[in-house]
Amino acid sequence: MPGRPRNGARPRLTVLRIGHRPGRDPRLTTHVALTARAFGAERMYLHPPDPSLAHRIASVARRWGGGFQVLPADDWRRLVRDHRGHVVHLTMYGEPLDRAVSRLRGLGSVLVVVGGAKVPPALFELADFNVAVGAQPHSEVAALAVFADRVFGPAPIARFRHARRRIVPQPHGKRVIALDAAESPS
Amino acid sequence: MPGRPRNGARPRLTVLRIGHRPGRDPRLTTHVALTARAFGAERMYLHPPDPSLAHRIASVARRWGGGFQVLPADDWRRLVRDHRGHVVHLTMYGEPLDRAVSRLRGLGSVLVVVGGAKVPPALFELADFNVAVGAQPHSEVAALAVFADRVFGPAPIARFRHARRRIVPQPHGKRVIALDAAESPS
Repeated sequence: MPGRPRNGARPRLTVLRIGHRPGRDPRLTTHVALTARAFGAERMYLHPPDPSLAHRIASVARRWGGGFQVLPADDWRRLVRDHRGHVVHLTMYGEPLDRAVSRLRGLGSVLVVVGGAKVPPALFELADFNVAVGAQPHSEVAALAVFADRVFGPAPIARFRHARRRIVPQPHGKRVIALDAAESPS
Repeated sequence: MPGRPRNGARPRLTVLRIGHRPGRDPRLTTHVALTARAFGAERMYLHPPDPSLAHRIASVARRWGGGFQVLPADDWRRLVRDHRGHVVHLTMYGEPLDRAVSRLRGLGSVLVVVGGAKVPPALFELADFNVAVGAQPHSEVAALAVFADRVFGPAPIARFRHARRRIVPQPHGKRVIALDAAESPS
């Protein structure tokens, strides 16, 4: 059975971001990608593709560790249909996260789809779950972060292997240490 | 004592967004503002001010309810210094949210400061708490959402009084009802 979780294992989290607008300010999609990475996703598919954004994210991932990648999604519908696991669409119109969370925690491989303002109606039918992080308009970045935090918890440290730098948390000020790849958490 | 919580009361949440770039794509700051509203903030101060963004957010708040406003912050340092309550700066360099969360839950009136890529070093000293939502680079939108969700929980329904429209959650598809202001949750 596709997507069945091993006992106690963290599900595999993949993000699909649709409705990107290449040529406009890329910061919003950059934030979606960095949030996906920081909250434990292995990769993010992007529709329409944007090689220059993918390149910039790859450079962040090299610096801060892990193998996170932004991959092109020319045909997002096929990606959704072919996903071996469950598809969760984050939308303010869906069922409340609170109500869905226990079912979501039991899933195996999860493809989370986040759109912009205009999402194709077909997505609501293609998704196994349409989940709302609050029934108010806000942000796909916020929705993705809270969803991943509540359903999966903190990203495993192994997601950020072979980092070249690491933050040492401080109550005041900044402290960052440079690492040889060999010293980084494994 | 400023900022002391009444028993069991939800703290007052105010957001200060610094490092906005008027004239560039306003979507990122729009997402910060909508996230602040959806997660229960009463208002967001914006530096530098952006009247046209404030106007657009006011129109969303009229439609979806509540009195959330974006207010100009000409002098953000004074705003931080004069805040009657505690100041929490969200930064990837700060102490982990997990470690700070129990102290944060006891606060009264909280001013949460979120910046962009370049935050003035003074902010780290001015803030009572520098809090990290994960020690990885991601997004001020994601950090604000997870912080508010973990520390304060869902926004009280009263935040969205006098809405003109309300979502009826659906497992598949969209359903929005139009309301007279009188019918809206109070």
